[in-house]
Amino acid sequence: MLLLTPGPVATSPEVKAAFAQDYAPWDPDFRVLHASLRRRLLQLAGGDPATHALLPLQGCGHFAMEAAIRTFVPREGRLLIPITGDYARRMARLAEEAGRQVMPLPMGAGERLSPAAVAAALEADRSISHVGLVYSETATGICHDVLATGELVAALGRRTIIDAVSAFGALPLDLATLPELDAAVFTSNKCLEGMPGIGFVAAPIERILAAKGNAGSWCFDLADVHQHSIGTAPGTWRFTPVPQAVAALLKALDLLEAEGGREARLARYTANQTCLYDGAQALGLAPYVAKSLQGPIVVNVHAPDDPAWDLAAFVAALKRRGVLISNFYNTPLPSFRLGCIGALTPDDMRHALAMIAEALADLGLRTRAAAPGR
Amino acid sequence: MLLLTPGPVATSPEVKAAFAQDYAPWDPDFRVLHASLRRRLLQLAGGDPATHALLPLQGCGHFAMEAAIRTFVPREGRLLIPITGDYARRMARLAEEAGRQVMPLPMGAGERLSPAAVAAALEADRSISHVGLVYSETATGICHDVLATGELVAALGRRTIIDAVSAFGALPLDLATLPELDAAVFTSNKCLEGMPGIGFVAAPIERILAAKGNAGSWCFDLADVHQHSIGTAPGTWRFTPVPQAVAALLKALDLLEAEGGREARLARYTANQTCLYDGAQALGLAPYVAKSLQGPIVVNVHAPDDPAWDLAAFVAALKRRGVLISNFYNTPLPSFRLGCIGALTPDDMRHALAMIAEALADLGLRTRAAAPGR
Repeated sequence: MLLLTPGPVATSPEVKAAFAQDYAPWDPDFRVLHASLRRRLLQLAGGDPATHALLPLQGCGHFAMEAAIRTFVPREGRLLIPITGDYARRMARLAEEAGRQVMPLPMGAGERLSPAAVAAALEADRSISHVGLVYSETATGICHDVLATGELVAALGRRTIIDAVSAFGALPLDLATLPELDAAVFTSNKCLEGMPGIGFVAAPIERILAAKGNAGSWCFDLADVHQHSIGTAPGTWRFTPVPQAVAALLKALDLLEAEGGREARLARYTANQTCLYDGAQALGLAPYVAKSLQGPIVVNVHAPDDPAWDLAAFVAALKRRGVLISNFYNTPLPSFRLGCIGALTPDDMRHALAMIAEALADLGLRTRAAAPGR
Repeated sequence: MLLLTPGPVATSPEVKAAFAQDYAPWDPDFRVLHASLRRRLLQLAGGDPATHALLPLQGCGHFAMEAAIRTFVPREGRLLIPITGDYARRMARLAEEAGRQVMPLPMGAGERLSPAAVAAALEADRSISHVGLVYSETATGICHDVLATGELVAALGRRTIIDAVSAFGALPLDLATLPELDAAVFTSNKCLEGMPGIGFVAAPIERILAAKGNAGSWCFDLADVHQHSIGTAPGTWRFTPVPQAVAALLKALDLLEAEGGREARLARYTANQTCLYDGAQALGLAPYVAKSLQGPIVVNVHAPDDPAWDLAAFVAALKRRGVLISNFYNTPLPSFRLGCIGALTPDDMRHALAMIAEALADLGLRTRAAAPGR
């Protein structure tokens, strides 16, 4: 089965093999593995172990994001969130339910984040302490320039929290050039191509130490995670983790290096995306965003404006052909998502497109490629 | 490697095989698996789907416990926690950091919970709304009579939250006989012998609906988990889960049934415990609690009062012989823990005891069994 989704993504057999073992997380040999994982991830994020820490948290990306907000945005703080799509709205909800003040910055759907608009909002309201940015909006497929925006935010004396969940491992992140970054959040799955089960927050040690007492939650207190990680048994977890996800992610990092590193992975995902974007157009389908805005993580395609269209039937017809895509909409106009990430290549994408053509034909939808004579 | 720990526990090859696959959690076929898992777990807990729900949460047992406390103990509520050991102290810390008022009920170390003492505390303080009880104290190995205590709590018009993390699947739990129970918390690993990655909270639907707005956390709002689970796409997760843990736990439930159900599992764990308890005594070691108090989950053994004793060296010597035990103390007097749970049998325990005798000899500790002439 080809898993063409923006997560959980398709993983390699080696990664799955490392996942399918019993591990004891407090075992000294395992702690060495865990320390090595954190060191390598921090390096991949451009962080220096002298100034930055990589904090692991059980669970998913949303948990790590709530933990980052609780830990770094004090209760009297105020968080500006440009509403780039569904994941930005989720960040706002996480912050609001945690009792933080959120100031949404409305944006046009299908628009790229404007650093100038963020700067203007910060200049207009001195009470804003933090800006929350989504790097890759899985809902639309647009990647936003969070690094340039983060620099502007820093220049205005405010701090940034980046949702890098579906970006990290492929899109660039360099903690060393983001001095006012409070947190970058990502997970063990997605572009890293490990298995799900761990959220990570990369953050400056100085900020972590200053954040003690902010969280209002033991589980989500990243200052406590840090304290524990440097405590009497460094490398242990506070609570039971999925240790298999640690071992699987180490193997996934080996594969990332063997592939040629982050740039090579981005190149493969970009090739996957180009293949899907152009291939969808060749079938007469309309990608959701303009090519100039299309990111390399997920291609959204407008649901065909045809009475024969039926998302569930289309997904089922594709699944019968060994291709699995998401079966729900999360854009203002209905669109289906084709993931470019995971252990997949342009050959897989070409195969998927052939199956898409067949599935559309099953539904009685006329496509260019499936039309007679071609 | 024999994993002789109270969690993460040793799992069966079939369970690991189910874990080592890619799954799409929103896929209709996967949702059927997820629904079946929740139905079977609720049944194992003695819950009726008409009155009770089984709510899954990404992460570990502590996360599920914080979610249960946040969701069911309102901010003006007050939680009495008998301090049965380290895990009761952790429950208190989870509640306090979530801003709930905690009233600890001190108990003697190595004492079994007295329902009468709980009743007296409730009678003395009408402001207590909830009682938090640890079923199996992993720190000491004592199992407490939370069911009888819960009945008394209910008779006094208060509500109970049970930490059943290292109990559920082996020790009895019958939601139908606990009308004032707010939540029973457990995980996918431990006595269920699945893989880690999911916490579960079993709770009355009526109470879940009444708890709307309590949590102060989107991630830990079990009322929202419930709402989502019965919403437009029943069986989906709010956020990315470890879907592998769902599939592995279903396989583990098959194995539980094949073994003869909960009673048969309890019998195996009890046989494991008897073997370890008696075997440790035969080696001249002193179990931490009296036999009348010893539960079937974990046997704690006093660190030998001998200058040659060294926990790390002992654990390393055991590990060289293929037996892995915890390498930290969490009792008032130093003791090492031997787990009775996981996919292990009395034969494994006898082998482990032989290796323990050898490891003690390595350290130069004289044991009865290792003494010459025996």
